[in-house]
Amino acid sequence: MKNTFGQSVSVTIFGESHGEAIGVVLDGLAPGIPVDRDLIDAQLTLRRPAGRISTARQEPDHYQIVSGAFEGHTTGTPLTIVIPNTQTRSKDYAATRALARPGHADYTAHAKYHGFEDYRGGGHFSGRITAGLVAAGAVALTALRGKGIDLGTHIARCGGVADRPFGDLAQDLAALRTMPFAVLDEAAGAAMQAKIEAAANEGDSVGGILETAVTGMPVGVGEPWFDTLEGVLAHALFSIPAVKGVQFGGGFDMVDDPGSVYNDAMHMEDGRVVLDTDHNGGINGGITNGAPIWFRLAVKPTPSIYKPQRTVDFLKGEDAVLQIQGRHDPAIIHRARVVADSVTALVLCDVLAGRFGTDWLAPEAP
Amino acid sequence: MKNTFGQSVSVTIFGESHGEAIGVVLDGLAPGIPVDRDLIDAQLTLRRPAGRISTARQEPDHYQIVSGAFEGHTTGTPLTIVIPNTQTRSKDYAATRALARPGHADYTAHAKYHGFEDYRGGGHFSGRITAGLVAAGAVALTALRGKGIDLGTHIARCGGVADRPFGDLAQDLAALRTMPFAVLDEAAGAAMQAKIEAAANEGDSVGGILETAVTGMPVGVGEPWFDTLEGVLAHALFSIPAVKGVQFGGGFDMVDDPGSVYNDAMHMEDGRVVLDTDHNGGINGGITNGAPIWFRLAVKPTPSIYKPQRTVDFLKGEDAVLQIQGRHDPAIIHRARVVADSVTALVLCDVLAGRFGTDWLAPEAP
Amino acid sequence: MKNTFGQSVSVTIFGESHGEAIGVVLDGLAPGIPVDRDLIDAQLTLRRPAGRISTARQEPDHYQIVSGAFEGHTTGTPLTIVIPNTQTRSKDYAATRALARPGHADYTAHAKYHGFEDYRGGGHFSGRITAGLVAAGAVALTALRGKGIDLGTHIARCGGVADRPFGDLAQDLAALRTMPFAVLDEAAGAAMQAKIEAAANEGDSVGGILETAVTGMPVGVGEPWFDTLEGVLAHALFSIPAVKGVQFGGGFDMVDDPGSVYNDAMHMEDGRVVLDTDHNGGINGGITNGAPIWFRLAVKPTPSIYKPQRTVDFLKGEDAVLQIQGRHDPAIIHRARVVADSVTALVLCDVLAGRFGTDWLAPEAP
Amino acid sequence: MKNTFGQSVSVTIFGESHGEAIGVVLDGLAPGIPVDRDLIDAQLTLRRPAGRISTARQEPDHYQIVSGAFEGHTTGTPLTIVIPNTQTRSKDYAATRALARPGHADYTAHAKYHGFEDYRGGGHFSGRITAGLVAAGAVALTALRGKGIDLGTHIARCGGVADRPFGDLAQDLAALRTMPFAVLDEAAGAAMQAKIEAAANEGDSVGGILETAVTGMPVGVGEPWFDTLEGVLAHALFSIPAVKGVQFGGGFDMVDDPGSVYNDAMHMEDGRVVLDTDHNGGINGGITNGAPIWFRLAVKPTPSIYKPQRTVDFLKGEDAVLQIQGRHDPAIIHRARVVADSVTALVLCDVLAGRFGTDWLAPEAP
Repeated sequence: MKNTFGQSVSVTIFGESHGEAIGVVLDGLAPGIPVDRDLIDAQLTLRRPAGRISTARQEPDHYQIVSGAFEGHTTGTPLTIVIPNTQTRSKDYAATRALARPGHADYTAHAKYHGFEDYRGGGHFSGRITAGLVAAGAVALTALRGKGIDLGTHIARCGGVADRPFGDLAQDLAALRTMPFAVLDEAAGAAMQAKIEAAANEGDSVGGILETAVTGMPVGVGEPWFDTLEGVLAHALFSIPAVKGVQFGGGFDMVDDPGSVYNDAMHMEDGRVVLDTDHNGGINGGITNGAPIWFRLAVKPTPSIYKPQRTVDFLKGEDAVLQIQGRHDPAIIHRARVVADSVTALVLCDVLAGRFGTDWLAPEAP
Repeated sequence: MKNTFGQSVSVTIFGESHGEAIGVVLDGLAPGIPVDRDLIDAQLTLRRPAGRISTARQEPDHYQIVSGAFEGHTTGTPLTIVIPNTQTRSKDYAATRALARPGHADYTAHAKYHGFEDYRGGGHFSGRITAGLVAAGAVALTALRGKGIDLGTHIARCGGVADRPFGDLAQDLAALRTMPFAVLDEAAGAAMQAKIEAAANEGDSVGGILETAVTGMPVGVGEPWFDTLEGVLAHALFSIPAVKGVQFGGGFDMVDDPGSVYNDAMHMEDGRVVLDTDHNGGINGGITNGAPIWFRLAVKPTPSIYKPQRTVDFLKGEDAVLQIQGRHDPAIIHRARVVADSVTALVLCDVLAGRFGTDWLAPEAP
Repeated sequence: MKNTFGQSVSVTIFGESHGEAIGVVLDGLAPGIPVDRDLIDAQLTLRRPAGRISTARQEPDHYQIVSGAFEGHTTGTPLTIVIPNTQTRSKDYAATRALARPGHADYTAHAKYHGFEDYRGGGHFSGRITAGLVAAGAVALTALRGKGIDLGTHIARCGGVADRPFGDLAQDLAALRTMPFAVLDEAAGAAMQAKIEAAANEGDSVGGILETAVTGMPVGVGEPWFDTLEGVLAHALFSIPAVKGVQFGGGFDMVDDPGSVYNDAMHMEDGRVVLDTDHNGGINGGITNGAPIWFRLAVKPTPSIYKPQRTVDFLKGEDAVLQIQGRHDPAIIHRARVVADSVTALVLCDVLAGRFGTDWLAPEAP
Repeated sequence: MKNTFGQSVSVTIFGESHGEAIGVVLDGLAPGIPVDRDLIDAQLTLRRPAGRISTARQEPDHYQIVSGAFEGHTTGTPLTIVIPNTQTRSKDYAATRALARPGHADYTAHAKYHGFEDYRGGGHFSGRITAGLVAAGAVALTALRGKGIDLGTHIARCGGVADRPFGDLAQDLAALRTMPFAVLDEAAGAAMQAKIEAAANEGDSVGGILETAVTGMPVGVGEPWFDTLEGVLAHALFSIPAVKGVQFGGGFDMVDDPGSVYNDAMHMEDGRVVLDTDHNGGINGGITNGAPIWFRLAVKPTPSIYKPQRTVDFLKGEDAVLQIQGRHDPAIIHRARVVADSVTALVLCDVLAGRFGTDWLAPEAP
């Protein structure tokens, strides 16, 4: 499989940045889940660039649901969403097609596709493809929320500025839902945006860390080996452009202190097992333990910068200097967070349907 | 799939810590690869506990290759290696089976398997299962080396002590091959081992960071979405017990500086594209770029500690205090490094066979 | 996986008979394969109903390639073809939606999708969905022919009338390519069509047998167990609506005579191993032997008949009598044959790319 | 995947006819299913050769369950069964290894494995490998019966003699369970065995048709496309050595009569939908309809015959005449029937666990 992910619930993405359309096929989701166009719109809006901290390319994302929804609900058969590309400017790319943009996939795409790749604007490698993930993810999110599972992501760090950590998750997730620049601490968010603008002014870019939390997951979901919940989530999350690291719970921050600090003690509460702390990110032995799942994504700084860069012309086989033109984001982390939510929702739907059956996600499973 | 990983080359693991045997089925590997028993033995030895920094349980790992090898080479059909368990002590576990060890999978296993799990010594969740991965990984490693691909892992950090970074990879990988405690800087290694012993003396444990490098990978291997090389590797690497984070190249260390610092500039060298730096870990857009692949694994401190811990008896539904008995490792990072090598080798064989065909890994592909 | 098939080359189908559009995503096919719109058109025309022996619903099949083709060739990334539905008549179906058509999937769809299924014209179960397979199959066929592999299907039997068997395969396959009613013996074809018309006049339907041949396959493709070439082909071929049996080579016709009759003797010819006969359909032990692959599909008579039928109203839970209205085919075998070709081509591309690598199907593999 | 089949419940087989051992890993089956050694023994006995109608090689099949069973039940983790080979006679094969046995996989194995295949007694292609399927299938059968699902296979045809069709399924399945030569009509069975002996006396072999029935399957299981229940079953069933055709319900016998004959009318009975007839084999649109599933397998005559045969020496590239030595079966259909039951049981467990969740097959799903 290449552009398809998931066993029980699967998602297939397609499209190129400057082709006819991009889109997504979401298959295997239970029948009867409301297809909430307002939520799809809202999620696509969160992904869309806005203001000086984003690219000037503005796609309206007028999507079309061409299959799989009937009378306002999922049918259980493939839900297909097609999003036409309208703001294409192919000319931007033809002249410099063989100048590999450092940090981008131009050279690796050429090595893999032997010159037949659609090179315009990154083609199939473009972050634009994530719009399909976001549209499908909105339906997955509706399914999860129907079962009492919620999730959300904030910008934990950007341009060297840290947001406050997650606190009361119900409140924090609710607050993040419609926030264009998703932070828990408003002042931190303002400082981050100032850093992005400063980088943009210098023709440079910034990265950061996204942090996602999931509440309400049943205990006992995941596998001890290979299909550990960490492994399956990470597999998909590394598809988010610029993500170069994934850690669960304390992750790399747990490596220096002894085990007595990070073992999550347990106690009984109202007849349920409850963890005192959550250093393991809600997962032990690859399987959910009932505590919130949380993980962090390392988002490298956007590789599209306007500073001159040493590179090669891979068709001529010559050294070259590249001065990137066109419309680019000085940061994508604020746009990537809804992609993180979407990918997480899609993976969790897959894992849950595999564990509890294909009807389980339906609001009132028969 | 649960205990099987890989499409073109797949690995299936089985067994429990105190059952009859553990083992592995390696399927799809090209015919004609030498089955090097010395290497299998050597790799199993690197995984085996040794000295005061490891558990006292000593398994001889007298394995049996029951299928798939004929006249010293792989046949191309399933290679099965069975490793009997001999040093089992079931009694250690029966009394405390319902006392969930914090940081372990006892409680999640119970939630998933409803009391039918083999609870002795972690059962199927035990790190002992990784011996099968190491045995199969040795054959995968032989296949890769036959194609000029090498790899190795060192303990980049342990107990707060840092090893020196990778330098000359050919030399460093050669040096690491047979080193029982795999570090590049001998003094750092000694300091780490002192930290482990100190933790052991306090009934506590330590974690750290493993760092793996791969040389010689062809350009153009991996997929832009979902089956990114990062995603596929991470998927499998999270199966290594105690791994809670995976990052490629700079990973979480790239989040604060601007893109101009981390874009890997390129130049031509002897007609080949060469990267000036390798912050992206040899992968752009999910696909190899010809630079060495490198990644880091966050290994949390071993959860088996001898200090009393608050927990629950999940059968009685009562709070409890646990005082762990038995034989345990104060650190597993030095033993986990050969597991990291093995998992990496297995995944790379799968990816390469999928990309270039099932015969490609044979020494002299016909 | 549900609506996705294939590992190395995969195909995902979507759509409903009376929804917005149907379509297909073809992923993993090598870059550089010509996207031949004339062939796609020609193949879709072969699938389209024509004359008195087919339904009166006429869809123009004006398809749109929305991704994966660039400058006339495959890019190697997902090729997506969307075919809008235009001749929809939803009213035909609303009144009788709960009257299960015998031999159709209405009742099973309801049992699976709990009333959320799009019931109009069979919804996602409609034979119309095969148009996507045909469009994608045309590209797969181009890839195969570029490697010297050809295939074709004739109506071996229909309404009790037998076509002549395959003879000179090069000639026969060439003759079948553009034949609307694909038979090797013209007179047999005329007799078959007369049988179909006679059945149509009685409000009834007929079935038959399709026979497919493949030439030029390399030796050594397939697996001994599970992914036998027979098994993988059959898996996909049973998706063709009304197919209820698949046999390779002599199949059910070999069960009464002794082994000495059906063992295909071998001899050398120009340094190559050649089989004297081909009772095994080109496959031994699941693997190609160099002889042509050939297989037969049992196509049951179309279940949509106009005679009154006893059935149930599954919403009311009452017995009922059904008198089918609407536009239906008295036979689909002549339209199904291009679907058989398409499914076969798609499966072979997958199997070949898995065996020889993802670039192998490109006309001039680099 | 090569020697692994199934998504939710998967089975991996390994071994060679004259290697150390053969075996199977059964993964994903629900925890808590009784591991009934008596049933495993009984099923292995049904597969074992007996009397003049079978090979003289007698393997005791003293198997060892090395993982996945604990205190008499499945644990939910991989159940591994190893069956040592004891009656190996490698010498039988060395001299003639390059003489391709017509109808066998010697030549195709060589083309695929390039001479590294274990050629002794068919190696990994040997019917002996099916013993692993039978052992795992016995556990799958226990799981199904615990949910009220039963199945069985009879020899519907052999050497030109027909058994009576299935009648009262509860009675017929019960009668078949322990019958060494599984027929519904004793006289037909005697006639078949006489035919087999006659063929054996002439150094020849016979084939036939196996017919399997499944009762108690829930309605609504299967997929409309690709993973149709027919497709998934056929995929696995073609792994049974010598099977060259699979048909569901009427299959190839439905091709000549009109649809009005084969549409299964429906009526209500005690509030349930019941089919009047079962020409569709319990499956419509790829999904179970509540009627018994039934299908037929075409078993070609055993290719190992003692008559001289024209063939090639594929190492020398010369024509040759082969006179097979060693121990062989003049018919395998009576031994293959328990393999058909086992493969069917394994596939159904996979499909049911995927549909209803991984716990569903447990006797008292929690």
